[in-house]
Amino acid sequence: MDSHMEKPYVVGIDIGGTNTVFGIVDARGNIVLNGAVKTDAFKDNINDYVDGVCRCLLPLIEAKGGVEKIKGIGIGAPNGNYYSGTIEFAPNLPWKGVIPLAAMFEERLGIPAALTNDANAAAVGEMTYGAARGMKEFIMITLGTGVGSGIVINGQVVYGHDGFAGELGHVIVRRDGRPCGCGRKGCLETYCSATGVARTARELLAARTDASLLRNIPVESITSKNVYEAAVEGDEIAMEIFSTTGRILGEALADFIAFSSPEAIVLFGGLAKSGHYIIDPIRRAIDDNVLAIFKGKAKLLVSELKDSDAAILGASALAWELKDIDN
Amino acid sequence: MDSHMEKPYVVGIDIGGTNTVFGIVDARGNIVLNGAVKTDAFKDNINDYVDGVCRCLLPLIEAKGGVEKIKGIGIGAPNGNYYSGTIEFAPNLPWKGVIPLAAMFEERLGIPAALTNDANAAAVGEMTYGAARGMKEFIMITLGTGVGSGIVINGQVVYGHDGFAGELGHVIVRRDGRPCGCGRKGCLETYCSATGVARTARELLAARTDASLLRNIPVESITSKNVYEAAVEGDEIAMEIFSTTGRILGEALADFIAFSSPEAIVLFGGLAKSGHYIIDPIRRAIDDNVLAIFKGKAKLLVSELKDSDAAILGASALAWELKDIDN
Repeated sequence: MDSHMEKPYVVGIDIGGTNTVFGIVDARGNIVLNGAVKTDAFKDNINDYVDGVCRCLLPLIEAKGGVEKIKGIGIGAPNGNYYSGTIEFAPNLPWKGVIPLAAMFEERLGIPAALTNDANAAAVGEMTYGAARGMKEFIMITLGTGVGSGIVINGQVVYGHDGFAGELGHVIVRRDGRPCGCGRKGCLETYCSATGVARTARELLAARTDASLLRNIPVESITSKNVYEAAVEGDEIAMEIFSTTGRILGEALADFIAFSSPEAIVLFGGLAKSGHYIIDPIRRAIDDNVLAIFKGKAKLLVSELKDSDAAILGASALAWELKDIDN
Repeated sequence: MDSHMEKPYVVGIDIGGTNTVFGIVDARGNIVLNGAVKTDAFKDNINDYVDGVCRCLLPLIEAKGGVEKIKGIGIGAPNGNYYSGTIEFAPNLPWKGVIPLAAMFEERLGIPAALTNDANAAAVGEMTYGAARGMKEFIMITLGTGVGSGIVINGQVVYGHDGFAGELGHVIVRRDGRPCGCGRKGCLETYCSATGVARTARELLAARTDASLLRNIPVESITSKNVYEAAVEGDEIAMEIFSTTGRILGEALADFIAFSSPEAIVLFGGLAKSGHYIIDPIRRAIDDNVLAIFKGKAKLLVSELKDSDAAILGASALAWELKDIDN
């Protein structure tokens, strides 16, 4: 009997430093009910946090027929370790050390739970409901405050020996380049995250004297959205910011292709939605830098999941493969 | 019934531009019989080549009880595509285009055959008989005339969408760096292959004026073995050549660790046998460059297979997993 019939829903929980969002998702990727709590309202005690989430989540589960209708819970969280179901030393979360979060939810709700980092969850979401449906070989790149990645090989997310594989935002693209929050220098995310775009904007505006719409914005508050809007108006500095960002990202993607030769690279995040201003230079840099044997092979795709839904969908997708607890 | 009992042997064939070596291998990795033909003696016709190899190989097979004792044939070849069993546009082999070599051997000998490139074969060999026995997550790096790689994730070699994944010798380590045979610039193999070491030697000897044992050797014929011998004598330039080479390789390995977080990196080839002169700077560069979350995790190992046996063993190891043709 098809278990989707018996247990037609999964739960997705996405944990961020400020907010935790969750939802009940059906097999076609519709979020049928959803909710949220403030993560930092429970910063003193992880038990209170899990209780707080369950208090808001249980009425949603009851409304869809109770826990027996839920196949599993998928959790996306920074520094999430898939193997152990723990969050380990996450700098952006209030709780310190190693936290067995998957087990805590399993115990309270009696539903099996799996946990991974947000970029891996995004990759599973894209494979289950989005642009990578049916693909067995692709790389997900999330362009947000940082740059995250989820690598899928042979239909499986690559977790590595320790559960933490796929940190492509911290591949070094410029030896002794920009300082990174990780303590090293020249990481991809210092150039190609939303924050990296803003740094490039500040550098370019300081180095050049020509007019730019971006000069009307306080330099410390320029966002990649501002750059996009200026580029649409034909602003040359804005277009150069995207072409620099896209070139550095495309050069890095060419190296990633040499690693796993994926069918596609899927980009997610606000920056990825900046259309041809960013996609064209990325594609050009891939073509210019990829080894001949890989030329023209890997597709460059943009996520098909709505920004507002993606975090819940990605986390929820993890849960479809979970086995029942009493199995 | 254990199929190793019924069919106790595999055949390994390693195809190089000059020589083809082959052997019959038992389940413990002993080469029980072996032979060789000149690859370039058959450069005009691939059919003559396959006939030539079979003519030398069949008596060895007969001596061990005939084709019914052979589980399969594994072939290591440049530009070998595992999925299709073909060699595709290999620049160092005499035959042009796409050659269905696995099928040609299968047809002539009635034994199932699999084919991949030499570095992937080396990875399977190391996993089956060598330093990576029992490991499910490791990266094999072959340091020869070029730099090759075989990536193992979840116990499987990564072939990618097209069969050609794992070209880590062509990751760019210096943007606009040394010209590479692949037509691009700054590839890892232009610095860390045996040829790369010789290039570094020539650069350093030209840039510096202090005495060196290497100055007694015609500069165009310096090999990594010469550099090793000079380093053993305490030659400072030789030690600097190794420390530069090791640093560049270690920096690249730190990025590879961010990709697949392997249990180990296994180095193979003459350069890898240069002991602490090369291993220490590699290890130091990994420690200095790896993301904090991966620090101290991946082991750095040197291949346990004898150079003279490794090519045949690696290719042969592919064959243990083959299914019988009449299955």
